[in-house]
Amino acid sequence: MSTALRTRFQAEIPAWVVAEVSAAGEVLGGLEERMALANRLARLNVRDGGGGPFAALVVERDGGRVLSAGVNRVLAANLSVAHAEVVALSLAQQRRGTWDLGARGFPATELVVNWRPCLQCCGAALWAGVSHIVIPDDSGEMERITGFDEGPVVEDWIGQFARRGIEVTRGVGLPEALAVFRDYAEWVARGHAVVYNARGTGLNV
Amino acid sequence: MSTALRTRFQAEIPAWVVAEVSAAGEVLGGLEERMALANRLARLNVRDGGGGPFAALVVERDGGRVLSAGVNRVLAANLSVAHAEVVALSLAQQRRGTWDLGARGFPATELVVNWRPCLQCCGAALWAGVSHIVIPDDSGEMERITGFDEGPVVEDWIGQFARRGIEVTRGVGLPEALAVFRDYAEWVARGHAVVYNARGTGLNV
Repeated sequence: MSTALRTRFQAEIPAWVVAEVSAAGEVLGGLEERMALANRLARLNVRDGGGGPFAALVVERDGGRVLSAGVNRVLAANLSVAHAEVVALSLAQQRRGTWDLGARGFPATELVVNWRPCLQCCGAALWAGVSHIVIPDDSGEMERITGFDEGPVVEDWIGQFARRGIEVTRGVGLPEALAVFRDYAEWVARGHAVVYNARGTGLNV
Repeated sequence: MSTALRTRFQAEIPAWVVAEVSAAGEVLGGLEERMALANRLARLNVRDGGGGPFAALVVERDGGRVLSAGVNRVLAANLSVAHAEVVALSLAQQRRGTWDLGARGFPATELVVNWRPCLQCCGAALWAGVSHIVIPDDSGEMERITGFDEGPVVEDWIGQFARRGIEVTRGVGLPEALAVFRDYAEWVARGHAVVYNARGTGLNV
């Protein structure tokens, strides 16, 4: 059968992400410590150039074992879906061998990510089986600094998550998160990076 | 470095999907013809068992060349993100070698899918670079028939897409789409399939 159809796609994290998680110990006691690693990976990802200034971890809520780490790989993988959250959630599911991180018999998990997920990743987080999401904030400040479009997320997104059994914690690691976005904006201004989803939104000015 | 972290994830479509697209000719003149293939793939995917009753194509708007085909692979790939839209959009990006299907120099593309995308896939469709989305409908009928939760999509989602340069066409292939969902619901009732994202929503009764 002669066809040009592709049948497989994949994304991977760079070796430095694994090295950073290993260096951090792979077990992180508190939310501040978990977010510090996410912010650190996001900052390093700006220089890596494989994608935007975003990183995420899937962590066991009790005990703090890091199940997976993801960084934005849109540019490196040629996949617009490869946001940090999607990468981290998918790698955690691969490790556990299930599409449902909330499946019976597994410790409860949380998604630690360096801003409120975009529209796509709000959906990805809803369906992945985590029971908790930890973010620095959900204001428009990230969009204003970086030019990224996060899409039309409903105002009561936290209530919508609660309705599906998912708790949201805000206010963790905010100053460092904003510092990473400012660093990224400077990097863009110097012509080193691409804001990759801003078509026609008027946000990327 | 000893670590249990996974570094790569992937999804693939089964050989029968490629065979069906090849049999259809890989060039499909009208929207009805394109949706007929999507509905057919969705129906076959129910029996395949790799995921839910959903299929999507990325097609060149002018001329109708099928760039990629995706079916829901959540169960087969152990990836909750592997909805039909994500699979089709990602495979089209792999074929073109770019994360942006709307990049200059490429023919405009449309996403043909057998219902209004869920929250995650609305986001995925916004960021992928398609300029048109074709669906049977966006009512709650699919959720009522199948028990799937589509998430909190904003009421004016079509306006939000338009604001980002993406047109939406509804009303294509509706009777066949509903027939596929009813077929799936029967399949579930007979214990053959899993409704995989309904945790705590009260929708999966």
